[in-house]
Amino acid sequence: MISQIYDVIVVGAGHAGSEAAAAAANMGSKTLLITMNMQTIGQMSCNPAMGGIAKGQIVREIDALGGYSGIVADKSAIQFKMLNLSKGPAMWSPRTQNDRMLFAEEWRIALENTPNLDFFQDMVKSLIIENNKVCGVVTSLGINIRANAVVLTNGTFLNGLIHVGDKQLGGGRMGEPRAFGITEQLVSLGFESGRMKTGTPPRVDGRSLDYSKMEEQKGDENPQKFSFTDTPPLTKQLSCHIVYTNETVHEILREGFDRSPMFNGTIQSIGPRYCPSIEDKVNRFAERTRHQLFVEPEGWRTVEIYVNGFSSSLPEDVQIKAMRHIPGFENVKVFRPGYAIEYDYFPPTQLHHTLETKLIDNLYFAGQINGTTGYEEAAGQGLMAGINAHNKVHGKEDFVLNRDEAYIGVLIDDLITKGTEEPYRMFTSRAEYRLLLRQDNADIRLTEKGFNIGLASQERLQKVEEKIAKSTELENLLKETSLKPAIINPILQEIDSAPVDQAYRAAQILTRPNMTLKMLDKIDDLGEHTSQYTDEVREQAEINIKYRGYIDKERESVAKMLKLETIRIPEDFDYSKINSLSSESRQKLNKIRPKTIAQASRISGVSPSDMNVLLIYLNK
Amino acid sequence: MISQIYDVIVVGAGHAGSEAAAAAANMGSKTLLITMNMQTIGQMSCNPAMGGIAKGQIVREIDALGGYSGIVADKSAIQFKMLNLSKGPAMWSPRTQNDRMLFAEEWRIALENTPNLDFFQDMVKSLIIENNKVCGVVTSLGINIRANAVVLTNGTFLNGLIHVGDKQLGGGRMGEPRAFGITEQLVSLGFESGRMKTGTPPRVDGRSLDYSKMEEQKGDENPQKFSFTDTPPLTKQLSCHIVYTNETVHEILREGFDRSPMFNGTIQSIGPRYCPSIEDKVNRFAERTRHQLFVEPEGWRTVEIYVNGFSSSLPEDVQIKAMRHIPGFENVKVFRPGYAIEYDYFPPTQLHHTLETKLIDNLYFAGQINGTTGYEEAAGQGLMAGINAHNKVHGKEDFVLNRDEAYIGVLIDDLITKGTEEPYRMFTSRAEYRLLLRQDNADIRLTEKGFNIGLASQERLQKVEEKIAKSTELENLLKETSLKPAIINPILQEIDSAPVDQAYRAAQILTRPNMTLKMLDKIDDLGEHTSQYTDEVREQAEINIKYRGYIDKERESVAKMLKLETIRIPEDFDYSKINSLSSESRQKLNKIRPKTIAQASRISGVSPSDMNVLLIYLNK
Repeated sequence: MISQIYDVIVVGAGHAGSEAAAAAANMGSKTLLITMNMQTIGQMSCNPAMGGIAKGQIVREIDALGGYSGIVADKSAIQFKMLNLSKGPAMWSPRTQNDRMLFAEEWRIALENTPNLDFFQDMVKSLIIENNKVCGVVTSLGINIRANAVVLTNGTFLNGLIHVGDKQLGGGRMGEPRAFGITEQLVSLGFESGRMKTGTPPRVDGRSLDYSKMEEQKGDENPQKFSFTDTPPLTKQLSCHIVYTNETVHEILREGFDRSPMFNGTIQSIGPRYCPSIEDKVNRFAERTRHQLFVEPEGWRTVEIYVNGFSSSLPEDVQIKAMRHIPGFENVKVFRPGYAIEYDYFPPTQLHHTLETKLIDNLYFAGQINGTTGYEEAAGQGLMAGINAHNKVHGKEDFVLNRDEAYIGVLIDDLITKGTEEPYRMFTSRAEYRLLLRQDNADIRLTEKGFNIGLASQERLQKVEEKIAKSTELENLLKETSLKPAIINPILQEIDSAPVDQAYRAAQILTRPNMTLKMLDKIDDLGEHTSQYTDEVREQAEINIKYRGYIDKERESVAKMLKLETIRIPEDFDYSKINSLSSESRQKLNKIRPKTIAQASRISGVSPSDMNVLLIYLNK
Repeated sequence: MISQIYDVIVVGAGHAGSEAAAAAANMGSKTLLITMNMQTIGQMSCNPAMGGIAKGQIVREIDALGGYSGIVADKSAIQFKMLNLSKGPAMWSPRTQNDRMLFAEEWRIALENTPNLDFFQDMVKSLIIENNKVCGVVTSLGINIRANAVVLTNGTFLNGLIHVGDKQLGGGRMGEPRAFGITEQLVSLGFESGRMKTGTPPRVDGRSLDYSKMEEQKGDENPQKFSFTDTPPLTKQLSCHIVYTNETVHEILREGFDRSPMFNGTIQSIGPRYCPSIEDKVNRFAERTRHQLFVEPEGWRTVEIYVNGFSSSLPEDVQIKAMRHIPGFENVKVFRPGYAIEYDYFPPTQLHHTLETKLIDNLYFAGQINGTTGYEEAAGQGLMAGINAHNKVHGKEDFVLNRDEAYIGVLIDDLITKGTEEPYRMFTSRAEYRLLLRQDNADIRLTEKGFNIGLASQERLQKVEEKIAKSTELENLLKETSLKPAIINPILQEIDSAPVDQAYRAAQILTRPNMTLKMLDKIDDLGEHTSQYTDEVREQAEINIKYRGYIDKERESVAKMLKLETIRIPEDFDYSKINSLSSESRQKLNKIRPKTIAQASRISGVSPSDMNVLLIYLNK
């Protein structure tokens, strides 16, 4: 039926698959996106929100490289918040609430407008593999579609099993069929597979809630956005609400523990540690008398509400009985109960840094199939898999982001080097150079790279270059402008900072705690210049000046690490012969097969003394 | 979990279920709508269009009674056409092309804004039945939800089996799971069930079509709308395109006939006669060298195209190979192939006129489960089932529309009296009083009824009363205004109509063929009055005057029929004892158990002489 040989086939059209397909197609690959249901492209399976701590950074990185997640999130946003503004800029994290239906629609329209991208609705049952290389897919209709590379992004659909109390239903999401065949084939080819678990909270009827008993949480007064492109900022926003569980709620939940698939042994697989079910929270933190919940609207027009923080696979009667004791939820009506879902994943140590599998050439994995959790983590992997599939097929170089270049680099390096036995979620703490990997400079870090591989547009590049030039100009202005005590001291007094008795450069003054560029604007001669710059440029210059010391320190660490990255380990290096390595190290090194000494050093269980042994063997 | 006892539970949220739920809830019933997936409420499973011949009339009837289909269709329309304008007003039929995603969204938002209406996402596995009365449902999560009435609107989901060539997949729609359990339970309770078949064409990528080889079909220049409410008319429209198959296409299709589930015996059940698959058309009308296809956009923004007229369950390779020989389709890319689906239905002779089942009290069926095809037929039944479920639960009278009152009346009377062995579709020819059942007067026919049962609003009623008053006023004006030959003859000449030699009333002139009210507007003294009226009022007055003779004749027939409707047959009447009835009549009368002589006369196989026998036995 489909005689064309595609460059790249992407299986699955969630966050990972959609980014993978868009990237490969935009770079010029003849790409086919296969999904079980074209009506469910770009579904938010769980919370109606994008970004958040460390995740918002990933969205901006995807955007800077030329991916779509930021644009789609902006176009479907109903609320914007910059989280962590009270902390340092490494922690600032953009987050949107989104209209679930609009998000999916915007993804679909974005993909439909992507050149070189075809669509097909069917379920992939198996891969065509010849000489250890993937050559296409076979669908449930028995259609063979050939391609030079395949990206698998199956999400929770591989042998998906839904749990609600003691009820179990096969499905990829509630109300949608699961997929099977792929796991079995991959295992027969030598892949190791495992099971993971995730969960989702109940969806409820907003008309049945009493918001007067909750705390309103509005969006930012001056909402920003994810994309560095000209997506329109929000002009109106919807509020969320905050509410807390209490001991009565916990007591009722506990009554259902014996019927919990989490506690009675039915579910053996591991769920996301930092996104636990409400029963898990009640059980693990027995001393806590309340847990915070976010009551999140699902869109501009719908009354559907997402009860963030109340994920559960307890029996539905327990879920609702407990919810009714949450303030404002006394008369809650449930659209559907929370549930847990178990699904197959493939430990990601079986992948190269490009997300290509080590066992089968030209086969790429991205998203939950690699043991991650989160839309942003999935989208970031999808983008990288799509880029690398395109590059491989076209004989181009691997595209790998280092740990000092992007959260996406940290994510993939963690996955393939350390593996994961529980759903992997990004945190700022996972990034050793997080002051370099800020949300505000994602464009500066990555747009040129995106442009060089043919993904980010020339227009984007020009915009970034201008931003860099302008912020350098502003930095220089601040470094060069000398301010006399009579001018500075009144401003210093405002922030209770010690007065000065000689002239200082504006940049020096700016490094003082609590001093801001905005305060310096008040100085007539200076302000008339500084206020000319855009918010983006001012932010960049301000951070560069205020955090220069920390940034330089991180840059030094990066330089050291990069030296180790240059010490490559031969691909056929035989660790088993080095008796002076610990047996754990030998085993792990043989399995992961790090490409460099730096990567070897990040493998858990490989000690500094093992590293020295290795360096000796490599004659360094 | 759900402790509330609902008045009405509606199972399924397609056209039938959505109307049923809205009607019952708006009338005041505590109503629960259960659907397998809340994301698929109000799906257009097949063509992205509403209305059409006889079907457009049903949509306007639903609207006049206070249902939602017309409003939802208007809000999501991308094109409007009044079909058959060259024929008499009985044949005028409104039709819209719709944005598939927006249609579903508008349905969902309309339902969410309906008071008394709750939602639950789950699959109903069985009914709770006590003492031959339905008392609720049991879901796949094992939840028992109690209610005083249940409306089943399962569409194609009951044991749905999808066919593409020799491939068979379980599913309710492509990519969605099927439902099971309900058929088996109902059969065990004594219901007769059968299998029907329907099909859908391929969806293709509009970017791959060459429209320059097709004939553009624009919407009406002055687009009207379905709803009598103030839904906004279209200000811009999208075009469809017309294209034809050819003998090469047919030849390729024929090559696949041996792998066609329709022809090789795999599919035994009967499909919709007037919506045949392309292979059926090629097979049955072998002499025809071409068949017309409509290339229909699926929405404002999507590139997806619906190939109306090319429904098929041939193997997907044959479908695409054949399509590539349609002009403009040379490079077509397919999003998904066409397919056939078999599903369970229950012969509708098992129902009362209220759509309540004869076997189980308070259980109602609506839509494809009754053997019908078409969104409008489903919606009309859903509305009536919802109304009657509400009325029954609240001890109110049955709400039945007669054959002279509405297409909906014809539809339901046909179904329950004659049954159907193939998917039943409405036509104007099925309505013996079709000149009374026009699209333009649906509000005049039905809004008062809708108001009296508590569904249509007071506002709607006032609007109709005003329309009636104004059109009577205008009719009287035309009947009273005398026009002199010198004034009329120039206008008569324009339409080649014989001149007059004496004064005539304007109404008399209007009855001449090709004469229109618009032409009479040109007469200064008259026109200054007639042009004051709204288009709706003018149309009403014009039709009433021009078609008075035919309308009066139909009214007379109705009066005769109504006399027969008053002759009721006792519920326990024993036909088997009347030997002078033919054995076929005895059997059918015993099965259908008509309530009146009129209904008995409509049963196929019951002859006029049988009717005389019956009248004698009833002492009339």
